Amino acid sequence: MAQLDFWVSIGSTYSYLTVMRIDRVAHAAGVSVRWRPFNVRTIMIAQDNIPFRDKPVKLAYMWRDIARRAARHGLPARLPAPYPLPQMELANRVALVGMAQGWGPDYVRATYRRWFVDGQPAGESPNLEASLTEVGQDVRAVFELADSRAVGEALEDETAEAQALGVFGAPSFAVGREVFWGDDRLEDALEWAATGRIAPAAG
Amino acid sequence: MAQLDFWVSIGSTYSYLTVMRIDRVAHAAGVSVRWRPFNVRTIMIAQDNIPFRDKPVKLAYMWRDIARRAARHGLPARLPAPYPLPQMELANRVALVGMAQGWGPDYVRATYRRWFVDGQPAGESPNLEASLTEVGQDVRAVFELADSRAVGEALEDETAEAQALGVFGAPSFAVGREVFWGDDRLEDALEWAATGRIAPAAG
Repeated sequence: MAQLDFWVSIGSTYSYLTVMRIDRVAHAAGVSVRWRPFNVRTIMIAQDNIPFRDKPVKLAYMWRDIARRAARHGLPARLPAPYPLPQMELANRVALVGMAQGWGPDYVRATYRRWFVDGQPAGESPNLEASLTEVGQDVRAVFELADSRAVGEALEDETAEAQALGVFGAPSFAVGREVFWGDDRLEDALEWAATGRIAPAAG
Repeated sequence: MAQLDFWVSIGSTYSYLTVMRIDRVAHAAGVSVRWRPFNVRTIMIAQDNIPFRDKPVKLAYMWRDIARRAARHGLPARLPAPYPLPQMELANRVALVGMAQGWGPDYVRATYRRWFVDGQPAGESPNLEASLTEVGQDVRAVFELADSRAVGEALEDETAEAQALGVFGAPSFAVGREVFWGDDRLEDALEWAATGRIAPAAG
């Protein structure tokens, strides 16, 4: 089956659109998705790629654009959501634990929903505990693992792999070494995964 | 008839995709397009919004992404094209003259084609003269007008109007005060122009 790596980083705003729809649209395209949590902030700081800080016009546009794209995808959203996230690192460590244990995508969707619909920042109370409970996890056990040096290093390793691949933002998608950036490139990435090319659109 | 303002700035790379297809897709959507040349660089410098300088990874991605999007839209492209353009100001002054005289869109398409297919930078020799000749204009007469203080001020006025509207990049589209940025938002903008909203996509 065709496969796509979904480089997901909780803290990225446009990724809300992607986490809520990728499994459905990938299934429809016959593509299997591997969720790969990483810390996009590490890469963006390393590359001095800071798109919104001190850019009020661009930031205001981002929220308006996300509102319209959420409408396009039939997703609820109360915007602007809290941003940036202070606890991005922890949010993604938990995601990494979840991917290893099989509840990762459900947790990511749950925490994004609380962030974008209920206004609770991801990676901290009460969002984090409620999202873990919602996906059937023992909060204390997950926290202990997520806090461990092994998981911290695993997240750094994943982030380094993303950066080596050419990922510089989130969400990103990779098919082999072919990288696509942005929720609005998900369809291109799925087509590439399924067919190895981008065909001219009709019309 | 529904109307869309197309804020176009020769020098923007992704705008190649838009200038080559906007008239066709807008016609199909029943939307009339008003081409509005401006100098996006003025706004980007004022807002310290410099997305690619000293960002080699993001720049390399941009060319790869444009290649794939050109394939999607059935457009030829020899990439990377020369970038950035030293003579962006003149290229857009000429576009403004052309819009007033009715040959503007044809000139913009001609100069982009020479830039993105033949590798000749827009706004300078031989691209500028050849593009003007192709669209039936007297090169010397156009240069004289484009060089005038009146046209320089008109381009500044248009740029100020774009900035006041919230435009911060190119290509941008506006329907009243609703602004859309990026070739990948053209379909959203056309839908907004035609219906005043974004409807949930099927599927």
